This record gives sequence, structure tokens and C-alpha cells, in this order.
Amino acid sequence: MGRVWTAALVVIGDEILSGRTQDRNVAQIASWLNVQGIRLAEVRVVADVEAAIVKAVNALRARNDYLFTTGGIGPTHDDITVDAVAVALGVGVVVHPEARAILEAYYADKGGINEGRLRMARVPEGAELIVNRMSGAPGIRIGNLFVMAGVPHITAGMLDALTGTLEGGRPLVSVTIGAFAPESEVAELLRSAEQANDGVSIGSYPFFKQGKVGGNFVVRSEDEALARRVSEGLGRDLEAAGYTVTVGGI
Amino acid sequence: MGRVWTAALVVIGDEILSGRTQDRNVAQIASWLNVQGIRLAEVRVVADVEAAIVKAVNALRARNDYLFTTGGIGPTHDDITVDAVAVALGVGVVVHPEARAILEAYYADKGGINEGRLRMARVPEGAELIVNRMSGAPGIRIGNLFVMAGVPHITAGMLDALTGTLEGGRPLVSVTIGAFAPESEVAELLRSAEQANDGVSIGSYPFFKQGKVGGNFVVRSEDEALARRVSEGLGRDLEAAGYTVTVGGI
Repeated sequence: MGRVWTAALVVIGDEILSGRTQDRNVAQIASWLNVQGIRLAEVRVVADVEAAIVKAVNALRARNDYLFTTGGIGPTHDDITVDAVAVALGVGVVVHPEARAILEAYYADKGGINEGRLRMARVPEGAELIVNRMSGAPGIRIGNLFVMAGVPHITAGMLDALTGTLEGGRPLVSVTIGAFAPESEVAELLRSAEQANDGVSIGSYPFFKQGKVGGNFVVRSEDEALARRVSEGLGRDLEAAGYTVTVGGI
Repeated sequence: MGRVWTAALVVIGDEILSGRTQDRNVAQIASWLNVQGIRLAEVRVVADVEAAIVKAVNALRARNDYLFTTGGIGPTHDDITVDAVAVALGVGVVVHPEARAILEAYYADKGGINEGRLRMARVPEGAELIVNRMSGAPGIRIGNLFVMAGVPHITAGMLDALTGTLEGGRPLVSVTIGAFAPESEVAELLRSAEQANDGVSIGSYPFFKQGKVGGNFVVRSEDEALARRVSEGLGRDLEAAGYTVTVGGI
């Protein structure tokens, strides 16, 4: 196996911690990172509080290849991510001329630029923009740090702009099989399959469907052929134990 | 304002970090905590790796009144939360006699107890059970630490069993109004409303609906009368600026 590239994510927002908003960026960014050959190693959700953001950013950017943040880059008073990231990096905040031009053009027929809108052109000194085709306000890249929107479809546009631009390793491949097998009946079988195969991990995810309990069993590896082989072996073991296996999961 | 009670949450699971599973426990536990008068202050999502769990548990349990974990308490080899929590607390792992009895009864007509099922009776030494009406396996309470299931509806059953048993302060009340007002046009108005009122915070959450941009504006306070008053004032300011306001949000 080659080098493993890792990323971390800081989700910024009182609305996530209050339960008002169901986060969707963790799953979205995790899936996108997998395709880039990068593993999401850890996530923290923090409040709209500068000290909390600074602490999380500094802890996670040091020990991962990449660090993403989501949330807090809009025009309102509770959008403090740019200032907090600048504090974390020990740099000032400047108005990025290209961001200003993008926003002036975007708002030309919507009442023009104002103080709130100009806030979205502010970046930590030395940052580049991540162009956002979905709305005016760009994302921000500075060093290994990627500052993204909180609204999931805007984040999606920013990820799209970054696709293929980050160095990564081999994508992690997941092969799933499902069976109406209570995981408590097949735990030993799963454990043996994982222990017998270096370079794979097997996850077990129980469900209750059609009035019956069952599990989806996910074999993960950087080696796709190995993942498929182990999954097929596990499928045969489950069939031998009397369960009907559904490739792709239930 | 009285004392603010805080909780943290450690979400444990490779399936969240791989993007396979959309977490629902953060929002579920956050909403439940609000009703108990406890604020969710921070969340970490970590992999099924003992060292990562131990580090997160020890960092967060020390600085919050309560710490919850979700995930990793099933019967399979990737369920390592009990062992990791025991390491974090510096205690051993024992089979809890009551948990064993619960599981023996639950599985009596399902093939009986086995090694995997017995794993779910293991607890850190000194722990109490959180009874779970949804399925056999109980949650675990030890000190200020609450070990919950990963499957959201099972976690819901455990939260239900805990309702009203945790000491908290006043619930945080949220009052929401919505308007087809681009937040970049009303940012200054929101900022002034927050600054003029101690003890409230105002969040701004943009949306795109019916072909138009708008925002929901959430006034949060421990003082319900204050939250309502500030929200009404904000509504009048938005109406004066030419927007139609919808109480309860759009």
C-alpha cells in the first residue's frame, strides 16, 4: 500500500449544534474525498465562537494533509470563519480584488454591492479563491486549508471546482453485500474474514426491513480486487450458514 | 441567567467518515438536550480506532457536564466502544449481570446467547445500564458518560429512558421568522438587533425556494419572553424595509 492521504473537517455552526439543521456536508465531503484518494480521518463540529474555531483548525491542520471547513462565510454577523481562520494562521484579513469583482458583477442587477456583501470578499492574507458557479461568493484556499460554504449545494459547486486538483493516493473501494442475517449470529464469521485478510476492514451495519433484522457487510480496501475477493468469500460463508446474500447490499 | 450546562458528543464510526452513512444522531441528541436544558457544545466524529476514541473521550468529558457517545456497541469485531471507554477511564471491562439476563431473555427464542451477543453485556467496571425498549442491548452510563447506540431509532429509545433524569438549566428557546429577504440585504439589521439585546443570539440561514432567495432568522435565548420580543422587533424592522415576514419561518 502507498502513502495514505488524510483530511479533516471542521463543521462550523450553532445551527448544527442546536439540532436546527441536519448536517449534510460530512457525508458529502467524505464521499468526494474518497474519490480523490483521500481519507476523511476526523471531524469536529464547533459553535460560531472564534476561540473554538481557532483551536479546532490548528489542532487538525497540523496532523492531516488537508483541512476543510464548512459554514460561516456568508454576509451576516454570525459569519466569522474568515476572521477565525486568519487568527489561526496568524495572518491579517484583506479584501481579495478578484472576489470583490466577482461579487460586484453578481450583485450588479441585485441592488449592487453593500457592506454585508463586501464581507464575502474578505480572505485571510495570501489566500486564493475557489470559484463557485452556484452563487457569487467564492470559497477560499490557503495552504492546506479549504474554506467552504455551509449550504450543501454551494459546497457541492466548490468541491466540483476542486475535483482532480488535490494530490491523493488510491481511492478506498467499498464492496457491500447484505443478508437477512442478525449481526449477532454472524459476528464470528465477520471477524474471521477480516483477520484472515490484511489490508481490508469489514464493517457491519444492522438494519430492520420488511419486518426482519439483517445486516449490510462492507469490505473496504485500497485494493479493489482484494475487496471483491474477500466479499465473495464472505458471501459464500454466509450462504453456507443458510443466509441468502444480496450483492450490493439490502 | 443561571448556570449553563453543557454536553459533548463523540460519534464513533468508519461508516460516517467514509460517507456511507448520513449521521442523524447529532441533530437528534442536540434537540433532546435542548429540552433537558443542556447545550450541545461540541461534537467529534472519530474512526473505529481505540486510540482516537480514548483521546476524544478524555478531552471532552473533562470540560463538559455530560459526554455522550454513539456507535460501536453491537456484537461485531468493529464494535470497540466499551473497551475504548474503559481504557479512557482506566477501569476494566466486566460482564454486567443484569445486561446478561436481559440479553438471555431477549434471545431466548432467537437461538439463545452466543459469544457475539454476550459482547453486548460487557460494560466498563462500575457502569449502570440505560434500558432500551427498542432492542435487547442496553446503553451504558458511567459517571458523566453516556454510551449510546449508533442506530438512530435505538438511540431514541435510550434518550427516552434518560428523559428528565439529567440535571440541566433553562431550555434554550428558539423563535424563527422567515422572509424572502436576501441575507446580504439585511445583514446590518440582524447585527444591530443582536447587539442591542444582551442574552440573545440571532442566526441567519439562507435558502432558495419558489425561485427566490430568502432567509430564516432564528432568535435564541434562555429567556423565552425576551426571544419573542426581539423576534417581533426584528419582524417589524424587516416589514419596514419592505419584506413580508412569516412567523415560524419559511
